[in-house]
Amino acid sequence: MKIKGLHELMLEQLEDVYDAEHQIVEALPKLAEAAASPELKTAFNDHLAQAHNHIERLEQAFKSLGETPARKTCKGMQGLIQEGDEMLEMDADPAVMDAGLIAAAQRVEHYEMAGYGTLRTYAHLMNHTEAGRLFQQTLEDEEVADKKLSQIATRINVEALN
Amino acid sequence: MKIKGLHELMLEQLEDVYDAEHQIVEALPKLAEAAASPELKTAFNDHLAQAHNHIERLEQAFKSLGETPARKTCKGMQGLIQEGDEMLEMDADPAVMDAGLIAAAQRVEHYEMAGYGTLRTYAHLMNHTEAGRLFQQTLEDEEVADKKLSQIATRINVEALN
Repeated sequence: MKIKGLHELMLEQLEDVYDAEHQIVEALPKLAEAAASPELKTAFNDHLAQAHNHIERLEQAFKSLGETPARKTCKGMQGLIQEGDEMLEMDADPAVMDAGLIAAAQRVEHYEMAGYGTLRTYAHLMNHTEAGRLFQQTLEDEEVADKKLSQIATRINVEALN
Repeated sequence: MKIKGLHELMLEQLEDVYDAEHQIVEALPKLAEAAASPELKTAFNDHLAQAHNHIERLEQAFKSLGETPARKTCKGMQGLIQEGDEMLEMDADPAVMDAGLIAAAQRVEHYEMAGYGTLRTYAHLMNHTEAGRLFQQTLEDEEVADKKLSQIATRINVEALN
């Protein structure tokens, strides 16, 4: 892989996150279906709708940078989703399964926070105001989604304990 | 995988993070060697020393829970480290390479933050005071390491731009 400068590195990171969001869109329906708690099911379905929105924002970001949207296989997200699949295969009580699904989903949120944080920093540095704004918006969505999962976990973990 | 309750789920998560830390210990010397910036090289070497310390803390946590340390292959960390390896194979100027290594390392930090955050929450809920304290200490180390990488990035990204 030939990376000439920071613009190319930003593009490589953008293609990585663009692929990651597509992987998330494929994985979330399985998590929503497996979740026992209606609240958690709703959270996963809400996040699915949001991920579609994040993909659109990434396409706008590619466009604003004069680039064509492309996916570069995100190995990190592949591993995280494999971990989620392992959770789905657990033989566990519903509340324990839900707690495990939240743990897997929060790893995904954290991956995205790191990815969008990096992209936002690069965009600001290169004065790509529009792309920077789009990355920042999604970064904030991910932070809110992570906190929401922590809130749901406080209730589910107590159930899982009993 | 049979997971009876929250204690077993915590143990599964503990074995995952224990494996992740071992993978990090193997990967960091490559990153330190590849880093061009002496400041970044030092940060990676410092983190290597810290990771050894985190492994010891995890062993103390296993012990405090009456369990034997064991590793469960952490697929998430495998993927993140593969991404780091892709960065190492980049044909890039030194500052751009360093920026890419930081991006990969911050994804690793975020994985660990999610993992230790979950463990800390489970430990507190089950009144495992000693394990909870150990997880919280490492969580704070990871947060500090992530901020440190962001600080180094502000200088390196400017170099990468030129």
